[in-house]
Amino acid sequence: MQVYKAPLRDMRFVLHEQFTDDGFGGLAAFAEHTPDLLDAVLEESAKVAEELLLPLNASGDLEGCTYENGVVRTPQGFKQAYRQFAEAGWPALAAPVEWGGQGLPEAVNKLTEEMICAANVSFSLYPGLTHGATTALQGHASDALKQAYMPKMVSGEWSGTMCLTEPHCGTDLGLLRTRADPREDGSYAITGSKIFISAGDHDLTDNIIHLVLARIAGGPAGVKGISLFLVPKFLPKDDGTPGARNGVTVAGIEHKMGLKASATCQINFDGATGWLVGEAHKGLAAMFTMMNTERVSVGVQGLGLAELAYQSAVHYAKERLQGRALSGAKNPDGPADPIIVHPDVRRMLMTIRAYAEGSRALGQWCARALDAEAHAEDPETRLRAGDFVALMTPVVKALFTDLGHEAGQLAIQVYGGHGYIREHGVEQIARDARIAMIYEGTNGIQALDLVGRKLPAHMGRSLRAFFHPVSTFLEDMAGEQDKGLKAMTAGLQQAFGALQLSTATIAQKGLKDPEEAGAAATDYLRLLGLVAMGYCFLKAARIAHRRLAEGSEETDFYRAKIVTAGFFFDRILPQATAAFLAIKSGKRAIMALEIDAF
Amino acid sequence: MQVYKAPLRDMRFVLHEQFTDDGFGGLAAFAEHTPDLLDAVLEESAKVAEELLLPLNASGDLEGCTYENGVVRTPQGFKQAYRQFAEAGWPALAAPVEWGGQGLPEAVNKLTEEMICAANVSFSLYPGLTHGATTALQGHASDALKQAYMPKMVSGEWSGTMCLTEPHCGTDLGLLRTRADPREDGSYAITGSKIFISAGDHDLTDNIIHLVLARIAGGPAGVKGISLFLVPKFLPKDDGTPGARNGVTVAGIEHKMGLKASATCQINFDGATGWLVGEAHKGLAAMFTMMNTERVSVGVQGLGLAELAYQSAVHYAKERLQGRALSGAKNPDGPADPIIVHPDVRRMLMTIRAYAEGSRALGQWCARALDAEAHAEDPETRLRAGDFVALMTPVVKALFTDLGHEAGQLAIQVYGGHGYIREHGVEQIARDARIAMIYEGTNGIQALDLVGRKLPAHMGRSLRAFFHPVSTFLEDMAGEQDKGLKAMTAGLQQAFGALQLSTATIAQKGLKDPEEAGAAATDYLRLLGLVAMGYCFLKAARIAHRRLAEGSEETDFYRAKIVTAGFFFDRILPQATAAFLAIKSGKRAIMALEIDAF
Repeated sequence: MQVYKAPLRDMRFVLHEQFTDDGFGGLAAFAEHTPDLLDAVLEESAKVAEELLLPLNASGDLEGCTYENGVVRTPQGFKQAYRQFAEAGWPALAAPVEWGGQGLPEAVNKLTEEMICAANVSFSLYPGLTHGATTALQGHASDALKQAYMPKMVSGEWSGTMCLTEPHCGTDLGLLRTRADPREDGSYAITGSKIFISAGDHDLTDNIIHLVLARIAGGPAGVKGISLFLVPKFLPKDDGTPGARNGVTVAGIEHKMGLKASATCQINFDGATGWLVGEAHKGLAAMFTMMNTERVSVGVQGLGLAELAYQSAVHYAKERLQGRALSGAKNPDGPADPIIVHPDVRRMLMTIRAYAEGSRALGQWCARALDAEAHAEDPETRLRAGDFVALMTPVVKALFTDLGHEAGQLAIQVYGGHGYIREHGVEQIARDARIAMIYEGTNGIQALDLVGRKLPAHMGRSLRAFFHPVSTFLEDMAGEQDKGLKAMTAGLQQAFGALQLSTATIAQKGLKDPEEAGAAATDYLRLLGLVAMGYCFLKAARIAHRRLAEGSEETDFYRAKIVTAGFFFDRILPQATAAFLAIKSGKRAIMALEIDAF
Repeated sequence: MQVYKAPLRDMRFVLHEQFTDDGFGGLAAFAEHTPDLLDAVLEESAKVAEELLLPLNASGDLEGCTYENGVVRTPQGFKQAYRQFAEAGWPALAAPVEWGGQGLPEAVNKLTEEMICAANVSFSLYPGLTHGATTALQGHASDALKQAYMPKMVSGEWSGTMCLTEPHCGTDLGLLRTRADPREDGSYAITGSKIFISAGDHDLTDNIIHLVLARIAGGPAGVKGISLFLVPKFLPKDDGTPGARNGVTVAGIEHKMGLKASATCQINFDGATGWLVGEAHKGLAAMFTMMNTERVSVGVQGLGLAELAYQSAVHYAKERLQGRALSGAKNPDGPADPIIVHPDVRRMLMTIRAYAEGSRALGQWCARALDAEAHAEDPETRLRAGDFVALMTPVVKALFTDLGHEAGQLAIQVYGGHGYIREHGVEQIARDARIAMIYEGTNGIQALDLVGRKLPAHMGRSLRAFFHPVSTFLEDMAGEQDKGLKAMTAGLQQAFGALQLSTATIAQKGLKDPEEAGAAATDYLRLLGLVAMGYCFLKAARIAHRRLAEGSEETDFYRAKIVTAGFFFDRILPQATAAFLAIKSGKRAIMALEIDAF
């Protein structure tokens, strides 16, 4: 059974307690966003997630989207839910005020996203893609385009897409073939086929605004000749309402492993009218504005699904009676004990719990950096925040989605045979979570982005935006007397040491041989992510200790924070050692086999 | 695209080269089974897998089984394929000669099973369950029952099932409620509901023979009051052919994440006629005869699917052009290089390859022990082989299925977005592989079986059947001069040391507190499995070195063996350190949270 109540207390913890000293805080731009206001937003989001979206999650998976005669339909209930969602203003939450958005801090937006993804990740893609598209338009489109499209997209009346992938090119966009022929009126005729287009067509909005990568004839080959175009499904009339159908047709929808209520479309552009967004041949940069925003949001999908997996698994583990506790019956009057008494079941539940809590904390740290990058008054803070975001974006995307999928798989395992059948909705969590490891750049690509671009950027400056606070914190913890906190500090210190050593190894070897960096990439991302989470857990545990020492009445809450942190250090962080050893071994074993010998 | 050619050369390697010195070999019972004969069996099996079963794998998943008006139908093509399969004598391969079986050694049977599982794991369950049922009958049924059922089941004319699970009880069979009321003619009236019954009903055979766990009224409570019954779908007439329908009805089939061409049924027994198999109240022991055989076979499912995942991923990685090699273009005349040039893709392919090779080798070692346990003339050898099988059964079941599923997930990742859609058949591999981690005892239960039963059994005698050959081998390798082999030996030595230490820790702590053993179980199983695989890889690498030194012409084959072994030691075995650290941390972090705090 899919069980989800938004973990509001945990969210308030990361929002108000955990990162107050991160050096990004206290943004004047958000002076009016009082804690009470933010909490109220979270409470309302929780209602939307729990009451409007969760009830459509399993049914949406079962029914899926349908494609008939060129028309795509979302599952029953989605249209009505989307209307309510849009009318209540949720699509506008994170959007700029000048276009009708509410301009809330990312610190709270990302928590709202987490709830929506937990309750219905398929649904989340429709507003999610629109948000990504408006981000790209905001950064790169002409005023005229913004005037015509932003208000309706921000309000959710129209939705957006990003059209990158073609049958023969995904990661390697340099190969793309979609053509843009200039017309005399300044518009372009767009011609080509795109696949894997999320929210590419549906029945939720009156118009769909595609952002399409294409080549203007005569431009440079490869990625340097790609431009970005806005191509609406319906061409707006003079009054701004949707008019004639543009040359955009849906050739079909993909039959996917999961995420079935999200329409993933094959789209043909046949001389469709489009307008250039940003400069010619600079489309990739414009698209990456969108992509980077999306990557953090995709990470949040993993987080949301980890929380859904956690609550669903806990629900079953408390209810399913099977066997007796090894330490003596815990439910002596019943036929058996609930399976949560068994250490191996507990191990799985605690693992998912640690994944969700660790991701939420690290995600929040990132969200605060996003806010500081955009709004800090001090340029040095903006720069540092931007460095931190650049470094952590691939980590958040890849690590959270890996863990979200693993969480779904663990939830299945807690359910046993009942997890493998459709009835309980748990196998859906794993299927839905699986795509997030792939789209917006596979997790392997994220790792390459981390070691190939982010590590060397500005002579390692991005890395320092992370290493510096960790070092400072470890120094600060050196005098700690509590035994538990001391042990965790030692664990973090050791993992951080392994990370520093690995960084030096990669920098040194990778300089001579980029394949060495490539061979280390995935393990390095995992190692860095584990250290970042370890930092977050230790911070949380220290705060919890202090609150308890101060006599807080929330003893259960803060004790649980300490226990979960302890679990992370005992049971999850050891992965860092495995990653370190793998990195140390270098590319040798990976590249030794001749291609023909595979 | 699902790609599969039986890896016959690798199979001949494990069958004829890798374990000749394992102390089990040279069984007189198999003197007539010459290497040539066994190779011929493998070649014929390969044809069946590649030509008869693989073509039905994706279509079977798409169509699934159907249930209508109480009748279950397998997907198109299955009936015809099963008839060909049975007529060619495949179901009888591993069955005893006295009942019409071919009595081939498990050493070759398990390789044949691997091929069938790789090509079509859903199909494999129909003959697989029959084989399990005949094993239980052979060990426990009366002569009369054997006479009536064995020949037709061995030939595949009739099929078998095992009916254990009920809606409220899976792992904890002590809770089961199905009732057996004695009748005057010596038969029993069986009444109750069973779920998750693989091959529980279908259209492949004229009769289906259910082995059902039930309680005879007045027997002891819990697992000590469970008996095993044979309950045919159709009661045989005097001439042995199927007669009147028994009181067995199918209430429905499960809608599962995968394995869709295998009918998983809910079955009601309404006063159905059944006959006791073995002694009253000793049903669990009889069922475990079947279960243990099945557990090794379920492990082999993981192995087969890992090989399918490997070949399918390699096919795509060689074909898909995307990006350029970091070391310079490898396909300069093409638009891009095949993605197999990228280190991170190579890492994934090598990982799957190592999983498949490691599982195949360890599986073969087990299969040889199974043969020796059954056929060695020397009682000491039989005992030692039996100890080895008892110890390794949970490891083979849990480790191989974990790795098989991970292999499927890695194959999806190699395919990227194309792995997430149905078209290429790769996501099916992961879905099909997922159940094997659950059925025949979840992998958590396997781990508990290992630490709770197998470690302490006979004062650790089972463990010695494994530790002894590893120690001896390590001593033997001590004088090795080759640099690569020396490094691997050091790696194995270290992991083996961690395993010995962990064993002592668990024995010591677990004696005082069984929850300590429970908390260590899953990591301990992984650690033991990794050491066992490491032993197999190092043996393989040493043999390959010798062959090359002797001037073998199969240089590519033996070099690849050394490379894959090196990869295992560099990139997979580091997991052993993580497992060791997790074990060392004990139950503290796992059991600290109050149940209400979850």
